[in-house]
Amino acid sequence: MTRKAAIIGGGVIGGGWTARFVLNGWDVNVFDPAPGAERNVEIMLANARLAVPSLSDGPMPPEGRVCFSATMAEALEGAEYVQESVSERLELKHAVYAQMQQASPDILIGSSTSGFKAVDLQKGAVAPANIIVAHPFTPVYLLPLCEISASAANPPEIIERTKKIVTEIGMFPLVMRKEIDAFIGSRFLEAVWREALWMLKDGVATTEEIDDAIRMSFGLRWAQMGLFENYRIAGGEAGMRHFMAQFGPALKWPWTKLTDVPEFNDELVDLVAGQSDAQSGHMHIRNLERLRDQNLVGILRALKDRNVGAGRVLNEHDARRRLALPDPVPDTAKPLEMARMQVLPGWIDYNGHMTESRYYFANSETVDAFLRLIGAGMDYVAAGHSYYSAETHIRHLGEAKLGDRLTGTLQIISADQKRFRSFVRIMKGDVCVATVEQLCLHVDIGTGKPVAAAPEVWGKLQAIAKAHAGLPMPEGAGRAVGQARA
Amino acid sequence: MTRKAAIIGGGVIGGGWTARFVLNGWDVNVFDPAPGAERNVEIMLANARLAVPSLSDGPMPPEGRVCFSATMAEALEGAEYVQESVSERLELKHAVYAQMQQASPDILIGSSTSGFKAVDLQKGAVAPANIIVAHPFTPVYLLPLCEISASAANPPEIIERTKKIVTEIGMFPLVMRKEIDAFIGSRFLEAVWREALWMLKDGVATTEEIDDAIRMSFGLRWAQMGLFENYRIAGGEAGMRHFMAQFGPALKWPWTKLTDVPEFNDELVDLVAGQSDAQSGHMHIRNLERLRDQNLVGILRALKDRNVGAGRVLNEHDARRRLALPDPVPDTAKPLEMARMQVLPGWIDYNGHMTESRYYFANSETVDAFLRLIGAGMDYVAAGHSYYSAETHIRHLGEAKLGDRLTGTLQIISADQKRFRSFVRIMKGDVCVATVEQLCLHVDIGTGKPVAAAPEVWGKLQAIAKAHAGLPMPEGAGRAVGQARA
Repeated sequence: MTRKAAIIGGGVIGGGWTARFVLNGWDVNVFDPAPGAERNVEIMLANARLAVPSLSDGPMPPEGRVCFSATMAEALEGAEYVQESVSERLELKHAVYAQMQQASPDILIGSSTSGFKAVDLQKGAVAPANIIVAHPFTPVYLLPLCEISASAANPPEIIERTKKIVTEIGMFPLVMRKEIDAFIGSRFLEAVWREALWMLKDGVATTEEIDDAIRMSFGLRWAQMGLFENYRIAGGEAGMRHFMAQFGPALKWPWTKLTDVPEFNDELVDLVAGQSDAQSGHMHIRNLERLRDQNLVGILRALKDRNVGAGRVLNEHDARRRLALPDPVPDTAKPLEMARMQVLPGWIDYNGHMTESRYYFANSETVDAFLRLIGAGMDYVAAGHSYYSAETHIRHLGEAKLGDRLTGTLQIISADQKRFRSFVRIMKGDVCVATVEQLCLHVDIGTGKPVAAAPEVWGKLQAIAKAHAGLPMPEGAGRAVGQARA
Repeated sequence: MTRKAAIIGGGVIGGGWTARFVLNGWDVNVFDPAPGAERNVEIMLANARLAVPSLSDGPMPPEGRVCFSATMAEALEGAEYVQESVSERLELKHAVYAQMQQASPDILIGSSTSGFKAVDLQKGAVAPANIIVAHPFTPVYLLPLCEISASAANPPEIIERTKKIVTEIGMFPLVMRKEIDAFIGSRFLEAVWREALWMLKDGVATTEEIDDAIRMSFGLRWAQMGLFENYRIAGGEAGMRHFMAQFGPALKWPWTKLTDVPEFNDELVDLVAGQSDAQSGHMHIRNLERLRDQNLVGILRALKDRNVGAGRVLNEHDARRRLALPDPVPDTAKPLEMARMQVLPGWIDYNGHMTESRYYFANSETVDAFLRLIGAGMDYVAAGHSYYSAETHIRHLGEAKLGDRLTGTLQIISADQKRFRSFVRIMKGDVCVATVEQLCLHVDIGTGKPVAAAPEVWGKLQAIAKAHAGLPMPEGAGRAVGQARA
C-alpha cells in the first residue's frame, strides 16, 4: 500500500519536502491555510519533476498523490509521518504540535527547524517523545542532508524510525551527538553569513564578488569532500598534524571579525588529527589527492556543460586557446582530418577502455566539424535545414584508453544534393581503432522530409566529393553486420 | 617564444602553480633549496597531468619545461613573472623579495600568501610597486580563483599585468576593493575552521560528521552559486529582502560561538538586497531556481559516477529501489525487454533531441543487461572472458527528447559458442526510434582472441537463441549502409 506523509507548512521547505516524498512514491497531504501555499507547492513539485528523475539510474517509482487538506486533522488522516515546516517561531510551533497531537497523539513529528533544539520544541507537548528535529537543506528535493536531533525525551526507536523514513526518500540522516542550537550545518552557514555581512558593510566586497570567490574556490572542494579531508590533503604527506601546525597560529590573527576561538593546544591538535586519521587514515595521501581531483574534474565538467561559475572560466579559457591555434587548411585530395579528441574520464568503462558508444560520438564530432566546413553548421540548422543521420555502420578494430589522443578523418564515398555517405576513421596515431560509415540525409526540419541542400552547401560538398572520387574505396565500406570478409 | 615563470617555493602551493603554468605551455624555473621539493613538484605535476587535460575540450598546448634552479638568480633568468610560495613568515618573505629584486629589480612578483596584505609584504623592498598578492586555492592546477590584492604602492598596470597572466593560465582573477588580512576566501575558511574546532572540542560532532554535513548540503550549493544567490532563491519570490527579514533575527541568537556581529538595520538590508538585485535581479526567481537545480543535478551526477559523498547516497538509494522492484522474468519466446531508460540532460543536443551516439549507448545498456542475464556480467569479465563488440549497424527511425522513457528489447538472430548476433529495438512506447544490429565475439581477455564461451553461459545463450529462432527476421537486419530497401 502506498505510504502517506503529512506536510504542515507549504513554503519553500514544506514544498520541497512534498516534492521529495511524492517523487519517491509517497502520497502527501499538505496543510497550510496561507494563500498561495498551494501554488507554491505546485511550483516546487514542477521544479523537482524536472530535476529529480535525472538523478535516478532506474525507473522512477509511480508518483504519489498530493492532497491539499482543509484542516490539520484531515491532513494527518492516514499519515504515518508528519513533517512540520512552519515559520521559525517557537510559540507557533508549540501551537501546531498541540493541534497535531490532539488529532493523532501517536504520530511521529519531524520538525524542519534550522535552529531550535528538540528539548525546546517538546516543551508543553502531550507526547514530547514523538517530536524530533529533522532538518533539511534547500532545495529539499535535491540535497541529501537531514540533521536529526533528539532530546533525552526521544526514545531510540523514534530516532531509528525517523532515520529510516528519511533514508527511504533518499536522504542522508546525520544524528547529532549532542543537542546544540542550529545543529551543524546552520552553525557554519551563520558564521559565514556573519563574516559576509561584515565584508559588505565594510565595503570590502560585493555580494557578487563574494559569491564568485566561494564558487571558484572552496565551494568546489566542499561539494565532494568536506572541510577536514581537504585540509588533510592540503597538509601533504605530513597530513593533518602538519596542516594544523601551519595554520594554528592564524587562530590568533585578525583573519575574521569573529574572534571567540578555542585555545590552540596539543589536546586540540590530538583530537582533530586523531579523528582525521580515523576518517581518512586508511587512504594514502596520493590516493586522496587523486580522488579529490577526479571529483573536482567531474564537478567542473558538469559546470562547464552548463557554462556557469568555474565552468564558464574553463569555457572562456578554451575559447582563448582556440583563437591562438592556427586555422586548419584541409587538403581535399585525401581524407580530411576534421577532429582531434582526447579520451576523457566520462568516455571510459570500468576497465579503463573507451566505451563503444563513444566511437560513435567521435564520429559525430568528426561529421559535425565537416558540416561546419561545408557551411551546414549551427546557423544553417537555425535557419531550418540540417543533415540527419539515417544509418551507421561501426567496426571496432582496436582499443582506446583514458587520455589517448584520437583524430577523426572523413572521406566522402558518394554524395548528391539530398544525401552523402561518409567514411570516418578514428585514428590513435597511425592505428585505426574504428571505422564509421554513415548515410546522412539533408532534411527540411519543418517537414522532416529530405530536400536538396542550399546551393552553396552543395557546391562545397560536391567539390570535396569530386576530389575524393579518386581515393580507393575504404576496406570495410558497404559491409553488413556479420557479412564474410571479402 | 615560450613564456617563462619562476616559482619560488616547491611545496603543495608552489608545486600546484608549477603544474598550472606548465600545462598551459609556460616554461617554469623552480627554486626551493629544501630537500624533497623536487619530488613534491613532480608529484603535483603528475596529479595535474591526470586531471587537467580532462577539462579541456580542445587539444592541450605543448607542455612547458620544468627546470630546478640552483639559485634564486638562476631561477629568475629569462622569467617574466615570479610566484612566491614560501612559508607564511613575513620576515622570510621580505628576505626572499630582497634576493629577487637584487637579481631582477623589474620582475613582477606575485605572492601566494593567504593572509598578509600587499602593504605588509612590500615593507623595506627596493621596488614595492612590483610586489602584489596573487592568492590561489589548493589544488592550484584545478581551482580557478586567484585573489589579487594590491596596496597604494602598486600602479594600475601592475594589477592589470597580474590579472592578464593568471587569466592566461586559466584562472579567475578577483581584485580586492580594499586591503584586508586574509582577503575574502580565507576569511570564510577561518570562520568555518574556528566554528569547526569548537564543535570538535565540545564533542558535538567528529571530523567525519562535519565533512559529511558540509558535502551533503551547502557544499553542493556553493560549488555552483555562492552564498547570496542561493539565499536569494531560498527567499522565494520575495527574494533577498524576505530572506533577510526571516533570518536577520538569528544574528542575535547563539547560533555560533563567533559572536561579533554587524548591527542588523535597514541600512544593512538595503545594502545586501540592493547588491543582490544588481547581481541576479535580471533573472526571474523561477529561472534562478531551475538554473540552480540543473547545476546541482550535474554536480550530483558527477559525484554519482564516482560514488562519493552525495553521489554515494544516490547510488544506495537506487540500489534500495532496485531491490524493491519485482525481478523481471524474461519471456524467451519474444524479444526480451532488457533495459528501461529515461533520456537524461547529458544525452541531448542543443535542440533537445537525444544525440545520435546515445542510441548506441542505449543498445549497450540493453546488451549489458542481456549479458548479465546469461551469466556473462562483471564477475565473468573479472574472471578473464568477455563479449567484445565487433561491428554494429544502427538505423535512426525516430526521435527521442529529454525525459522520454525508452525500453531496449533484444532478439538473438544467430549464435554459436564464439559469437552472437543481436538485434536491439529502442522503443519509445510502441514506436521504434532506432534499431541496432550487432555482432559480439566471445574473447579471452588475456590473449584478445575469440574462444568458446563457458558451458553455462553458452547453455543460457543457446536456449534463448533456440526460442528466438522461430521469430521472424527483423526488418532491416543484414543491411549495409545505403543499401536499397528490400
